[in-house]
Amino acid sequence: MIDVNAEIGKLDWSREPKGLYEPIGYTLAAGGKRVRPQLALLATKLFGGNEEDVLPAALALEVFHNFTLLHDDVMDKAQVRRGRPTVHVKWNENTAILSGDQMMIEAYKLLSRVPEKKLAKTLRLFNQMATEICEGQQYDVDFESREDVTIPEYMEMIRLKTSVLLATALKIGAYIGYANDEQQQKMYNFGIHVGLAFQIQDDMLDCYGDQATFGKAIGGDIAENKKTYLWLTAAAKGAKEDLALRDESKEARFKRIIGIYNRLRVKAAAEKEIAKQTAAAIACLEDLPQNDYTEQLRALARKLADRTK
Amino acid sequence: MIDVNAEIGKLDWSREPKGLYEPIGYTLAAGGKRVRPQLALLATKLFGGNEEDVLPAALALEVFHNFTLLHDDVMDKAQVRRGRPTVHVKWNENTAILSGDQMMIEAYKLLSRVPEKKLAKTLRLFNQMATEICEGQQYDVDFESREDVTIPEYMEMIRLKTSVLLATALKIGAYIGYANDEQQQKMYNFGIHVGLAFQIQDDMLDCYGDQATFGKAIGGDIAENKKTYLWLTAAAKGAKEDLALRDESKEARFKRIIGIYNRLRVKAAAEKEIAKQTAAAIACLEDLPQNDYTEQLRALARKLADRTK
Repeated sequence: MIDVNAEIGKLDWSREPKGLYEPIGYTLAAGGKRVRPQLALLATKLFGGNEEDVLPAALALEVFHNFTLLHDDVMDKAQVRRGRPTVHVKWNENTAILSGDQMMIEAYKLLSRVPEKKLAKTLRLFNQMATEICEGQQYDVDFESREDVTIPEYMEMIRLKTSVLLATALKIGAYIGYANDEQQQKMYNFGIHVGLAFQIQDDMLDCYGDQATFGKAIGGDIAENKKTYLWLTAAAKGAKEDLALRDESKEARFKRIIGIYNRLRVKAAAEKEIAKQTAAAIACLEDLPQNDYTEQLRALARKLADRTK
Repeated sequence: MIDVNAEIGKLDWSREPKGLYEPIGYTLAAGGKRVRPQLALLATKLFGGNEEDVLPAALALEVFHNFTLLHDDVMDKAQVRRGRPTVHVKWNENTAILSGDQMMIEAYKLLSRVPEKKLAKTLRLFNQMATEICEGQQYDVDFESREDVTIPEYMEMIRLKTSVLLATALKIGAYIGYANDEQQQKMYNFGIHVGLAFQIQDDMLDCYGDQATFGKAIGGDIAENKKTYLWLTAAAKGAKEDLALRDESKEARFKRIIGIYNRLRVKAAAEKEIAKQTAAAIACLEDLPQNDYTEQLRALARKLADRTK
């Protein structure tokens, strides 16, 4: 199997003007799990396709994902990403905007290298995904100032913001691997369910994770009164007023909110939803070719649902 | 000939989430001369091609151009664009970033609709153009803090930032109109020269234009001590220290700098360069088919060199 990290390392960011390209190299060198390109490669191979054919699209997906993180960090005024200063902190905001723009263009440049016969549909799938990610980000922003967000609305928001990228990686991989339309759609749906489970697990880790293992600070969502799956579940059980910010220390708030969550069995509800989404994901694989790659996808779905970081 | 404004008006921005799409509609409704899509249509027709074939790319070029203006306005903290508040003023900076990102994606969505046989090369040309525009913007930023910028460096910067978009509109138009490689390159070169003349004329209008006719405030470049063609020509003639900002009113500075420019015959040097680029542009058309559209390009080149707004 192609080593995705090595392929990303081969991309050259030493070009001029340095002010444009250095921040792109910095962002991509920060690592991450490279889940999206791995999924694209895996999907192609599951159907017996050639992983070289999908590699440009796999890299495009990873570059695009990192572009969204770069611009999201500007919008969220985030200071740290993967243990290092964010681009707008290390350089400045204008650099983060412009290098981010260029990073999106680089994703399209990579995409343009897929086999020409496969280009038109791959581009359409990629554009649709990119659109839905921006829509998800906008809904996330909108939710901050809305007090009537429902759990179905939240699920739709995380479907757009998180799931669609995983799903599209799998669908493009399947398409380039010569899967038929129905198979492509099953791969896509697998990605949607896995993404939903992943995001709810992310919400869980903010409350119940171990800071050292998780790698990012615990309790951030609670400190910001962010509308997570847990928050919305507690709110739906009548605790909305108790969840509001009060004049108390961050530690006291964390303890108080976890107390509410425990009292209302919110953790159990989230775990149930994660299990449901994981089962739905695995069910999507039933009628597909059964081989090592299908097994890897099953293992991935189970691992994401059970992860501690 | 297809009515480009009407086609842009047909694009639907009433979709949800409104916070994402409304600023895109607002930006595109502001008008502008629609030069880039017109050039693409004209180029296709010059070679006898079908303007319907190039229309998606023509619209993609206009949407991309407006996206660059949107993000440039954020980076420049510009308050007004085409007589109306900029997006980050009317909404906020995060909206301008995210809606701008979506606008770039919309450009690629439009582009994906060109005839499938023409898609791969059109996408590569478009990506190359988009990259060079970002590079030009970065050089423009870099020049602000450099005291040793040369006129050739400046010409290269405006080639990237301004010319390449016009040139690529013409080249894509020619390509989709079935021009051969040499013809495509001549159309591209025409656009490069016209763009250089256009930008130097823009620098001139900031000093010698009539505010009411030009439509934007005169003297902005002088007030900011911006390194324009005029500034660099005067600096090359030994006036760099005299050009520096001093403790004086905006009006006094304007009068003083124009005095330096007049004394050093900077205006004549700029006019000579504009005439040279315009002649070079027109020469590119010599060996192409001669018809109404070639004549329109010649007229455009002459008009841009002589424009007062």
